[in-house]
Amino acid sequence: MRKFAEISNIVNDAFLQIDWNIQPEGLYKPIGYILSLGGKRIRPALALMATELFDGNIDSVLKPAMGVEIFHNFTLLHDDIMDKAPIRRAKPTVHVKWNDNTAILSGDVMQIIAYQYIAKTPVRVLPEVLNLFSVTAAAICEGQQYDMDFENRTDVSVEEYIEMIRLKTAVLLGCSLKIGAVIANAPSKDADLLYDFGINLGLAFQLKDDLLDVYGNPDTFGKQVGGDIISNKKTYMLISALDLAKNEDKSELNYWLGIDEFDVSEKVKKVTQIYNRLNIRAICEEKMNEYFKNATKCLDEVDVPSEKKKELTILANSLMNRIS
Amino acid sequence: MRKFAEISNIVNDAFLQIDWNIQPEGLYKPIGYILSLGGKRIRPALALMATELFDGNIDSVLKPAMGVEIFHNFTLLHDDIMDKAPIRRAKPTVHVKWNDNTAILSGDVMQIIAYQYIAKTPVRVLPEVLNLFSVTAAAICEGQQYDMDFENRTDVSVEEYIEMIRLKTAVLLGCSLKIGAVIANAPSKDADLLYDFGINLGLAFQLKDDLLDVYGNPDTFGKQVGGDIISNKKTYMLISALDLAKNEDKSELNYWLGIDEFDVSEKVKKVTQIYNRLNIRAICEEKMNEYFKNATKCLDEVDVPSEKKKELTILANSLMNRIS
Repeated sequence: MRKFAEISNIVNDAFLQIDWNIQPEGLYKPIGYILSLGGKRIRPALALMATELFDGNIDSVLKPAMGVEIFHNFTLLHDDIMDKAPIRRAKPTVHVKWNDNTAILSGDVMQIIAYQYIAKTPVRVLPEVLNLFSVTAAAICEGQQYDMDFENRTDVSVEEYIEMIRLKTAVLLGCSLKIGAVIANAPSKDADLLYDFGINLGLAFQLKDDLLDVYGNPDTFGKQVGGDIISNKKTYMLISALDLAKNEDKSELNYWLGIDEFDVSEKVKKVTQIYNRLNIRAICEEKMNEYFKNATKCLDEVDVPSEKKKELTILANSLMNRIS
Repeated sequence: MRKFAEISNIVNDAFLQIDWNIQPEGLYKPIGYILSLGGKRIRPALALMATELFDGNIDSVLKPAMGVEIFHNFTLLHDDIMDKAPIRRAKPTVHVKWNDNTAILSGDVMQIIAYQYIAKTPVRVLPEVLNLFSVTAAAICEGQQYDMDFENRTDVSVEEYIEMIRLKTAVLLGCSLKIGAVIANAPSKDADLLYDFGINLGLAFQLKDDLLDVYGNPDTFGKQVGGDIISNKKTYMLISALDLAKNEDKSELNYWLGIDEFDVSEKVKKVTQIYNRLNIRAICEEKMNEYFKNATKCLDEVDVPSEKKKELTILANSLMNRIS
């Protein structure tokens, strides 16, 4: 099996072949823009790697895999409107560079284009892949809705949080892998194991995100450290801290959650100190490792020689050990 | 063939079977709301009527036809955000009743649900129907983009306007009819004729909309007469008037287009008087009748006994003679 870097390049090259300079410019130019901002192309790469795992030809999965990536970027585009996010990958977001209406409509047509790429799936498995993709896409919208709902709630449980990130993040990794497996005619048991590998990897991936936000190295993280703390985002870490904090820690944490005006670096520092006293980093790492172990177990059970799984294992490890 | 009213009831009953009271409520409740606001269900009815034209069973086209209607309502939902429209069918729009983010995300998931219904197309014609639907859906987004672009332009030609309404309105009527024909295994020549019937009917339908906006009876129109005049919307009528107006008419028309503060009913009255002097009503009716004649010609050429086409003809006529 090819290495992730090589697969990722194949996907990137395929995206560079698409001409987005078509009319109406206001509709298609933002799509070329957001797709050009980069990203690691993890999702389509997972689809292609899953195909190679079963000796399938990546030509038959490249277009559907690109559909998944286009859909992923569509969710980023619309999420950025909803979150009023000004920056994405160190560049202005579409709704800032253009305007809200352009971002809404370009996102809408991206969904359709995503389906056009998914529709390039070989006819023999088209109904199955189409159904999997739609169920996944709807789940992602549900995850985003729960994420927004949680902003106005103070009683979010750890279980609810895990379910939210499963929907918002994990299912698309599982879906990517399963699409690759199904197109390569993998046995359905193996396709399902790869799906579960993706789910658990996705959960661990998101917990890693939560960890980096607080404990990332400011020199290498690429984003503002403490962003989630500043915005009171209900992450696994904050929810755990709210569960565990007692007495002074509890009142201090509630103080920082309750005030609207504050010194940003002071809030980050103080909340991080509470996390440290409550051992939140280790708690989150433990949960992350639990999901990562589940992921590894699923991949182990896939009925192909372990030598073939090497590159997927390397990719999974690199996602856990990333610093940004 | 069954009458439109009967077919429309079948579609409405099918929509009433869907339970939108599912979680997360913020995502799905707005969908139930917008679909409950009514509308004539013209698009799915056209699909079902096209199926009956070729002796197909409407059971096989009902779900894809509902997909078209769900997609149509999704476009209304997102268009209302972009247009900042407060009212739809005499009820508050989704982005007003809830908020912009809810309207964006509910619309997004409606697109996915639309595809889930389209995916219920019999497998033998699924790739064809899926492709037709996606091409149509993208065209509708392009039409909306041109419509927004035209707001900031003063040099829109009649040809550009017709192309815009072809994309924004007509293609979905053509698509609905063709989906019904394809699922009923109609010969491709007939399916294409029905598509063209839909395109021409759609163009005539939109010109009727433009006419009603100015010359509709305020007692029966259901909306504010003159809405397009008030907002300087570049309709066929305004573009024609700008082409034809000379001397005093020209400067008066430009005056009304240029001022930001005005007495609403005075502007409507004065611009309508200019239209009257320039004979714009007859010009628009002539164009509308031209498209309607084209539509009729296409339907005539469809190779089934004319007795079978009766209900489609009656429906087409009623759309031309409607008063709201």
